[in-house]
Amino acid sequence: MNEEYKRILDEDVRLVNEAISRCGELSYSDTPGELVIKAESYSLLAGGKRIRAALCVELNRLFGGRIADCCYDVAACLEYIHAFSLIHDDMPEMDNDPVRRGKPSTHVKFGQNTALLAGDGLSLLPFEIIPKLCENRSIDPERAVRLMGTLASAAGSRGMIMGQALDIHSEGIDCDLDYLIKMSELKTGCLLKASAVFGAILAGASKKEEEAASRYAAGVGLAFQIVDDVLDIIGDEKLLGKPIGSDKRRNKNTFAAVLGIDGAMKLAKKYTDQAVSAIASYEGSELLCQLAQDLMSRNK
Amino acid sequence: MNEEYKRILDEDVRLVNEAISRCGELSYSDTPGELVIKAESYSLLAGGKRIRAALCVELNRLFGGRIADCCYDVAACLEYIHAFSLIHDDMPEMDNDPVRRGKPSTHVKFGQNTALLAGDGLSLLPFEIIPKLCENRSIDPERAVRLMGTLASAAGSRGMIMGQALDIHSEGIDCDLDYLIKMSELKTGCLLKASAVFGAILAGASKKEEEAASRYAAGVGLAFQIVDDVLDIIGDEKLLGKPIGSDKRRNKNTFAAVLGIDGAMKLAKKYTDQAVSAIASYEGSELLCQLAQDLMSRNK
Repeated sequence: MNEEYKRILDEDVRLVNEAISRCGELSYSDTPGELVIKAESYSLLAGGKRIRAALCVELNRLFGGRIADCCYDVAACLEYIHAFSLIHDDMPEMDNDPVRRGKPSTHVKFGQNTALLAGDGLSLLPFEIIPKLCENRSIDPERAVRLMGTLASAAGSRGMIMGQALDIHSEGIDCDLDYLIKMSELKTGCLLKASAVFGAILAGASKKEEEAASRYAAGVGLAFQIVDDVLDIIGDEKLLGKPIGSDKRRNKNTFAAVLGIDGAMKLAKKYTDQAVSAIASYEGSELLCQLAQDLMSRNK
Repeated sequence: MNEEYKRILDEDVRLVNEAISRCGELSYSDTPGELVIKAESYSLLAGGKRIRAALCVELNRLFGGRIADCCYDVAACLEYIHAFSLIHDDMPEMDNDPVRRGKPSTHVKFGQNTALLAGDGLSLLPFEIIPKLCENRSIDPERAVRLMGTLASAAGSRGMIMGQALDIHSEGIDCDLDYLIKMSELKTGCLLKASAVFGAILAGASKKEEEAASRYAAGVGLAFQIVDDVLDIIGDEKLLGKPIGSDKRRNKNTFAAVLGIDGAMKLAKKYTDQAVSAIASYEGSELLCQLAQDLMSRNK
């Protein structure tokens, strides 16, 4: 990615992190009641690429939205939902993963009960924050309602949560490509699409533009998952910051297992091309087109 | 309670149950992906007094709101959040309760992973439904935003979830009355207050009326919890439908343990009086006044 685009994306991430830090709902004292908030904060500040937030900001920019402070506050809401899903996904009854981004998972650090509640708290946080942004007139009510409906449906029982359910169900059985695609579309795709649509809604984009944003994110999401699977086989542990081969050890169904490395990368390219073609005709889409290419050719 | 009031409340509950049944988001097929929705539905239809929904409907009626179908759909949202909290509360890492209302708890019936996801799904469901009611013009956007903000804040990390955190923390230590009151206000009071305020918001009530609704529910909530604690000592197992003495066996901090039966009932009366006095001056408040009295003198 060229230096200018990299600088813009880094600045997006910095400003989203700033929005997370200034979020009053996440400030805590060392009292028993606020331990859950401390756990929420721990999980949020443990790092992460902030891809969802960046999609929101960059699609907003693409469709001519004013990049006000509230755009970062709204973008952060996507990261709250993402963090909620990671906390619950890592728990013993789900993936039972004691480590996340090189640090103890939330339930290891704070105990299972506090982790359960921290995930619950983060799942509700966007619906506390967006109404407050509406109350102080940073967003109008129509837009606030659309943002909340889009987010809840994307994360809910017919979106991300259904993807997690399909993931649980797939353990120990052989899945075909269709199943893997559907699972990935739900588990990560829905929230990524919502992230892009968030940007479009904030910009007051047309329905056609919203759909373009959604198609872009859908392609990026599938390509991202496929590359993840490939890197778990041929990646560099030092660059990735985690051991490779974990999918195979867990006997997980992955795109790489079903299609082989070459077949998987071919499919990743197809989805990346779809993502690019969804937005390429819009002026100023070069950064997002490069982002899609870079996410495919990344090595970490 | 006189027959007419009883009939009105029974009809409220019937119509709320109908709203839950017609909720498209809760209909499911027997596929792996929809097992989570089946679990949500199981938990919702396992019974319950629907006090939260009834508070919403009756406060709406008190403040002159039109009792349209959408009022029951909105009231049902309070029950979704309540069911979410019960599913997660019953899980092994929390209260570890295998039975709820005489039936296997959700995690016993469906497994811990599905129960975790079912709770997550229900926590998001109101924020899917209310925007749809807004989209089909049953509620205006301003009101939809206020409802969602009120609900998320009441349930979130500084509301119901903080109450659950305080409850976890209190295990094995002696709590004083202030701690018990704060815990109860958060764990059950916040959602009850939101339920009453929901009714006021739907009715387009004034701020003063909203506050009266909130004070009423706060008093009812504390009295209700105190009576719960007392019934666990002196209640009739057959009427209650569950074994008594469970609080003592679990060494739980309760109002009855701290104040004794008589002291606890005196405090329940004080809170009931506060509830009644908050709304007694409004025309048509007799049903709600009687409801508060009845919840205090119940034997089940």
